[in-house]
Amino acid sequence: MRDLGEFGLIARLLPLLDASGPPALVGAGDDAAAWEQPAAVVVASADALVEGVHFDLALTSWADLGWKSLAVNLSDLAAMGASPQWALVTLGVRPDAPVAGLEDLYRGLAAVGARYGCRVAGGDTVGVRHETLIGVTVLGAVPSGEGGTLLRRDRGRPGDRLAVTGTLGASAAGLHALRHPGDLPAALLAPLAAAHRRPLPQVAAGQALRRAGVRCAMDVSDGLLADAAKLGAASGAGVRLAAGRLPLDPGVRAAFPQRALAWAAAGGEDYQLLFAAPPQTMDGARRALGDAGVAATEVGVLTDQPGTVQLLDEDGREVVLGDAGWDHFAPAPAPAGPGR
Amino acid sequence: MRDLGEFGLIARLLPLLDASGPPALVGAGDDAAAWEQPAAVVVASADALVEGVHFDLALTSWADLGWKSLAVNLSDLAAMGASPQWALVTLGVRPDAPVAGLEDLYRGLAAVGARYGCRVAGGDTVGVRHETLIGVTVLGAVPSGEGGTLLRRDRGRPGDRLAVTGTLGASAAGLHALRHPGDLPAALLAPLAAAHRRPLPQVAAGQALRRAGVRCAMDVSDGLLADAAKLGAASGAGVRLAAGRLPLDPGVRAAFPQRALAWAAAGGEDYQLLFAAPPQTMDGARRALGDAGVAATEVGVLTDQPGTVQLLDEDGREVVLGDAGWDHFAPAPAPAGPGR
Repeated sequence: MRDLGEFGLIARLLPLLDASGPPALVGAGDDAAAWEQPAAVVVASADALVEGVHFDLALTSWADLGWKSLAVNLSDLAAMGASPQWALVTLGVRPDAPVAGLEDLYRGLAAVGARYGCRVAGGDTVGVRHETLIGVTVLGAVPSGEGGTLLRRDRGRPGDRLAVTGTLGASAAGLHALRHPGDLPAALLAPLAAAHRRPLPQVAAGQALRRAGVRCAMDVSDGLLADAAKLGAASGAGVRLAAGRLPLDPGVRAAFPQRALAWAAAGGEDYQLLFAAPPQTMDGARRALGDAGVAATEVGVLTDQPGTVQLLDEDGREVVLGDAGWDHFAPAPAPAGPGR
Repeated sequence: MRDLGEFGLIARLLPLLDASGPPALVGAGDDAAAWEQPAAVVVASADALVEGVHFDLALTSWADLGWKSLAVNLSDLAAMGASPQWALVTLGVRPDAPVAGLEDLYRGLAAVGARYGCRVAGGDTVGVRHETLIGVTVLGAVPSGEGGTLLRRDRGRPGDRLAVTGTLGASAAGLHALRHPGDLPAALLAPLAAAHRRPLPQVAAGQALRRAGVRCAMDVSDGLLADAAKLGAASGAGVRLAAGRLPLDPGVRAAFPQRALAWAAAGGEDYQLLFAAPPQTMDGARRALGDAGVAATEVGVLTDQPGTVQLLDEDGREVVLGDAGWDHFAPAPAPAGPGR
């Protein structure tokens, strides 16, 4: 890295982005990128992954890191019901970073970008001393005039049903399994590790929900309980979840039956969508998701008791879990913890 | 910081952004920000400041850091001839960061945003262990269909004249003076320190140049020689600069007469605009800048010898400087060095 220098590095990395989609009007390499934007509601999100906090290079390949750093941002666009368009990437590079690793990181970025129609248009590389960092800003859109249909956290109402796409817990289980190698047969490990390393943002589901009239959603990044609490707080409602209804990941249930519920409820990094809607809208939304090939499960309701978040068993008793979510500023976060 | 937590911090910081302009359709606090965007050529740039590499909290206040982190990005929009519109900010926060400092940082962001019509629409806070980080993505625009008029590094041609706005060297001199307190009377120190801490991106100048038919420009962030070399390389031309014509900052000349030329040529972080144009265009461009209240100085020409960068004295002899620019990946960069 020291030998190559910043500008040598950039020259090596830029061609790797060509796989991610049609080029911008002005691409990376000038002071800024530029593209023609038809009239639209632009949707924008920024999120960064930090070494030692969000990832551990001993457990994650550079390519997976590239994938994940863009995927978690695409998940924010999914959670608004927007179509991804452009991304800008800020790379904080340690002096000892391997150039081949950085190239792989860009390949991972380009791969997930290509899958979701998001072109990496530009960005920046900066030197860092201690903590490798990948900061991503994504830009997406919904049609002009449809800003009122965006999926927002604060659009839930008491009485709304709560549902979640896909299954929960695989990412946290995958991280655990990666940290404790040898505990699990490869056939069980592989899909859990993939869920942790290469999450699949629910972009099509978000668009289907928005078109089906759903107005309240967010992505599940910090764990279902923690994120449902945020949605409830933003919407001025309480949250009641039925532990028996959580869509436990079948692979987690097979590998870690004792922990599957806790990870589904509080593991984080699933990047599924949590959404709230009145009963009639919910029925139509679930049909629309089904047409898009996405499973969804009703997991609870919004209540008229703001500030309360309950996870109840079948007898209506509160379920106690060991750990409920994640705070980025908690003392001494575990490396590569289920974050974000 | 540990006591407040991520979500407490965000609740404290968001109101501070209200000063930076009219709100977005969806502001910070949801999964993403959103705004109505009329058809336009969108111009986007991302850039980060890293503690220990780009700044030293012993020399820079939090408010100045906020100002600078957005200002250096606005300078990239200026260098394209675009109007600033929106910004997203990623804040990497150490566990021991003072909340009042982070609030001041957001006040600094809002202040420079308000000055240049750029609203901070959203972003993200993440925990870091060692290196405070402020990553900013800015979005600006030029009118739809005018993408061909953007100021680009690769639009120069041999025979073009090279000119630079404003004066050069004050930021590097300010950094030096801040590192060696007591060497300079306060009246000399203050303007140099301000140039280093609160740079003023040349947004109006960039727009005036674009409208005056100039097509080649970049901002001077790494130092005139280093940046002119990049402009020459992108344009397939050589660079010849006249040392005697560089617009030395008068404050630097008064305080550091022996070093003024070296800092003007290679100090960096001036955030002036370097531009190239054929002689007739150059004359009109300088008149247009003058109408906008911006001084500009012709400092050299583009030659037909790609790969060469010469700084010549009045007798045509090469001027040798101690230091020529800055590479982010150079071994052991000095803290708070003239970077970017």
